[in-house]
Amino acid sequence: MDDDDLRRGRPTVHVAFDEATAVLAGDALLALAFEILADEPTHPSAAVRAGLVVELSRAAGAAGMAGGQMLDLYPDPNAGLRAVERLQRLKTGALINWSVEAGAILGEAPAAHRASLRGYADNVGLAFQIADDLLDYGGEEAKCGKRLRKDAGQGKCSFVTLLGPAGARAKAEALVEEAIEHLNFADCRSSQLLVEIARFAIARDR
Amino acid sequence: MDDDDLRRGRPTVHVAFDEATAVLAGDALLALAFEILADEPTHPSAAVRAGLVVELSRAAGAAGMAGGQMLDLYPDPNAGLRAVERLQRLKTGALINWSVEAGAILGEAPAAHRASLRGYADNVGLAFQIADDLLDYGGEEAKCGKRLRKDAGQGKCSFVTLLGPAGARAKAEALVEEAIEHLNFADCRSSQLLVEIARFAIARDR
Repeated sequence: MDDDDLRRGRPTVHVAFDEATAVLAGDALLALAFEILADEPTHPSAAVRAGLVVELSRAAGAAGMAGGQMLDLYPDPNAGLRAVERLQRLKTGALINWSVEAGAILGEAPAAHRASLRGYADNVGLAFQIADDLLDYGGEEAKCGKRLRKDAGQGKCSFVTLLGPAGARAKAEALVEEAIEHLNFADCRSSQLLVEIARFAIARDR
Repeated sequence: MDDDDLRRGRPTVHVAFDEATAVLAGDALLALAFEILADEPTHPSAAVRAGLVVELSRAAGAAGMAGGQMLDLYPDPNAGLRAVERLQRLKTGALINWSVEAGAILGEAPAAHRASLRGYADNVGLAFQIADDLLDYGGEEAKCGKRLRKDAGQGKCSFVTLLGPAGARAKAEALVEEAIEHLNFADCRSSQLLVEIARFAIARDR
């Protein structure tokens, strides 16, 4: 939809094939995600599998990724920090959140731990997006594998235009520390891995 | 994808809004379908809900609707009857089949009845598509609410171009009778309704 010709250093689907193929590949992959989640090998409990489907459908649909992408199509050049945060929580945050929540659902974690993990994921998702904006502002196209600095010309607000690069960096770092604090309450065997993921979200150069 | 400006007498989404909105509306509605199926109010048994999701994902994805639409995008002007049947079984048949199968899953029908209902649905789906081709050949645009006779100009094969209108009509009628015979084996309370649906599939004028 942003008509980019490159992702991860490779041609995008609509450039390598055509737009209809890209749309159908998206539909087919979306359906495949739900097939895998609902299928028996994923977990012996059907309630767990149905729970994974419900949460992913909400994260992907009108109240998640698709809704956030819709907001992003018609950028408001006067959008403030709260509007940009809301857009990003839907567009990228909801799926990052789901990928953490899915672990909690599969592990049948108690409600209190699920809430802590949601807090962690909310903060990591937003920090990840701020890091994306920082890479778009100061990163290298060869490493990122996509065109950078396109949005500025389209009058889109980002965390960097709103907070400046130093302010955006400071906010991302604060969010990561807050994310890690949430893990103190989630008695989670993989918490060291989750700490490393949170730090990686803003340390990456691509 | 066929760039039609009219469906059921109303402007198509990409004409009323734009292409990106149409794509996102499709993604959001696809996600919503899975959310409804997997959500608790749909059925008390999580295994039933997960089963509905697995079957719909297969019917909608690469081995169903999306795959059939992909075949339809690059029509082979020399396609024979079997190729056209295969395309239509995927493109429209798979979802018609699912809508019958969903009733069997929700009612927790035994395997033998589910097989009979699948046979019924296979035949009705193909008959429905032949009726569509007949309407495209000889129907009224005002009633159908869409542009007709576009495919012929694009070199697409249809049941009418392959069998002629009389042959196509005879094949549709035979399929409907075969569909109804399947119901003799499915001890199904709603079989009278299913008989009427099968007959309606080819009696409709829109």
